[in-house]
Amino acid sequence: MKKHNFSAGPCVLPKSVMEQAAAAVLNFDDGLSLLEISHRSKPFVDVMENARSLALELLGLEGKGYKALFLQGGASTQFLMVALNLLEKRAGYLNTGTWADKAIKEAKIYDDIYEIGSSKSANYNYIPKGYDIPEDYDYFHCTSNNTIFGTQMKSFPNSPIPMVCDMSSDIFSRQLDFSKFDLIYAGAQKNMGPAGTTLVVIKEDILGKVSRKIPSMMNYKEHISKGSMFNTPPVFAVYVSMLTLEWLKNLGGIKAIEKENEKKARLIYSEIDLNPLFKGYSVKEDRSIMNATFTLENENLKETFESMVKEAGINGINGHRSVGGYRASMYNALSLDSVKALVEVMSELESKA
Amino acid sequence: MKKHNFSAGPCVLPKSVMEQAAAAVLNFDDGLSLLEISHRSKPFVDVMENARSLALELLGLEGKGYKALFLQGGASTQFLMVALNLLEKRAGYLNTGTWADKAIKEAKIYDDIYEIGSSKSANYNYIPKGYDIPEDYDYFHCTSNNTIFGTQMKSFPNSPIPMVCDMSSDIFSRQLDFSKFDLIYAGAQKNMGPAGTTLVVIKEDILGKVSRKIPSMMNYKEHISKGSMFNTPPVFAVYVSMLTLEWLKNLGGIKAIEKENEKKARLIYSEIDLNPLFKGYSVKEDRSIMNATFTLENENLKETFESMVKEAGINGINGHRSVGGYRASMYNALSLDSVKALVEVMSELESKA
Ligand SMILES: Cc1ncc(COP(=O)(O)O)c(C=O)c1O
Ligand SMILES: Cc1ncc(COP(=O)(O)O)c(C=O)c1O
Ligand SMILES: [Mg+2]
Ligand SMILES: [Mg+2]
Ligand SMILES: [Mg+2]
Ligand SMILES: [Mg+2]
Repeated sequence: MKKHNFSAGPCVLPKSVMEQAAAAVLNFDDGLSLLEISHRSKPFVDVMENARSLALELLGLEGKGYKALFLQGGASTQFLMVALNLLEKRAGYLNTGTWADKAIKEAKIYDDIYEIGSSKSANYNYIPKGYDIPEDYDYFHCTSNNTIFGTQMKSFPNSPIPMVCDMSSDIFSRQLDFSKFDLIYAGAQKNMGPAGTTLVVIKEDILGKVSRKIPSMMNYKEHISKGSMFNTPPVFAVYVSMLTLEWLKNLGGIKAIEKENEKKARLIYSEIDLNPLFKGYSVKEDRSIMNATFTLENENLKETFESMVKEAGINGINGHRSVGGYRASMYNALSLDSVKALVEVMSELESKA
Repeated sequence: MKKHNFSAGPCVLPKSVMEQAAAAVLNFDDGLSLLEISHRSKPFVDVMENARSLALELLGLEGKGYKALFLQGGASTQFLMVALNLLEKRAGYLNTGTWADKAIKEAKIYDDIYEIGSSKSANYNYIPKGYDIPEDYDYFHCTSNNTIFGTQMKSFPNSPIPMVCDMSSDIFSRQLDFSKFDLIYAGAQKNMGPAGTTLVVIKEDILGKVSRKIPSMMNYKEHISKGSMFNTPPVFAVYVSMLTLEWLKNLGGIKAIEKENEKKARLIYSEIDLNPLFKGYSVKEDRSIMNATFTLENENLKETFESMVKEAGINGINGHRSVGGYRASMYNALSLDSVKALVEVMSELESKA
């Protein structure tokens, strides 16, 4: 039976990518496995360079002063690297969810953080709007898509100071003017590849302005100067990310995938809205096209619904404990067919009930 | 033709491990790839727990107050995590090579570092001995095997303070009383798995003694309290490390592999010594059983030797630029046959010359 994997991340990747990855583990270059080649060998240096330039190309940031890095440590390490590299006196953060909140907590170790807006008191079911970004702050930090709560920023401010964005759960999923951002970071394990690497895209001219000494592994400048190979990179994760970016490019890039993502989102949200058994969690205008969060109106149907879901080969739709209910994560590689399968189960439940 | 991969890391892994890894990329659990499952799913939590306990078991450290972690960031990130978590006033470091030197450089950002001994002026061709470790320092840091220079500590001091050791290039290769150490770290990409994860083994009671605030991702206590899953772990690299540790256990553990490693080392070093065309780089008593470094006595033979090497399917023996010549890295998964192949080429060169 076909599996429909709605996991919130790590998550489904294109089948062709999985096949190429498995083949490379057996034989990547001249009889050697991808896992045993030197990271300084030409074939891998080419992979790294290809991945870095594909990332910039797909975001439309080539030749605009940006550098792409594939680092280790997950997006969680970026919470602290951003502060270490950019925070001199004070920064402004938009608190739109658990991850934004953690980013704030880590940055506070280094200096003063001001919450420019927050939806914490509403358990993050909406995106704050109408906030001002002070001109004398070091940077503004926001989270484009709130994986846990299923909200997404539909527009971004014209920030008078460098704008940093955690795009872990929606990078490469929709067209944006990415040149509005000065630093973008994203764990690979949603739209880009397996867990184990993090993409960081930086406008180089924002660096070098803080007075603290930055440890080498935490220093963006150091990584840039070494071509994202300051130390041994996570070879496999970078390779699979490169394959996924190639897949996306061949598909027609962000423009093409955005259409697919919108179709999937329209399908699930219209079912959530029209089906009286289900209720959406986040406010309509801020709904994420990546993570749809919803609950059952009648908890008595829980068992029936979940066994029907299981029977349909659907996996990974349990909501995060801080929201409850369900979360359907529909990243780039999830097919429209998978969403159709879920929606069918939801409407079947309605006929039964 | 069979490839003989002497790469210094990433490096050769057991063939059976590669095959299991490739299969898991296609189907790990119930039709889902290892790359698309949630890291919070039972199958992966089991992998992580299995890898952590195998590491302690193989080192003989079970039930002795140690915890094993599989982190991201490479051994280079440990250079700074060690200092952040343990350095309050002053620490002593043994400077035995490029990596030790880098560990010192990163720790200096946080406080005072004293070089207890150094072989830097001899381009690290020996291990300093007869040094004293001051009782009032926070910890003592050493590097068990110097990958670049081919030297290895054959004995360790009875340190009056916590002893921290970078075992990146010889962990699991020889029997030691590992309980002498309070913190051991090692990038996976030599004896343990692919690049992308780092094993850290810590005696828990040395933690919590510094006054600084430690960022979550840099905090060993935080990682321990979350079972090495504070954030999304590098799933694939941890899985392959687990497979490699299982392979080693089935082989008979460190005791069994040590015998193999000694055979390989004896073979290459006796060729280096007896063959008048080659000269060992490091002093005999400190020779590494993992990385044998040597040079050609007559540079005119370079081209001939290297083309013979290539013809024999041997790869990865170019020395690091700071030593020159050749380096044969003979990690656990490299077979005796591969060393025989190299030694044959060396002796063939002698007959020709
Ligand atoms: C928006 C966002 N930021 C940060 C993270 C943390 O990522 P990591 O586990 O790679 O540290 C996540 C993980 O799901 C996320 O969704
Ligand atoms: C002894 C030693 N320590 C540290 C490192 C750095 O490891 P990483 O590249 O994982 O940061 C190496 C890499 O070869 C090494 O051999
Ligand atoms: Mg969130
Ligand atoms: Mg409804
Ligand atoms: Mg060294
Ligand atoms: Mg000789």
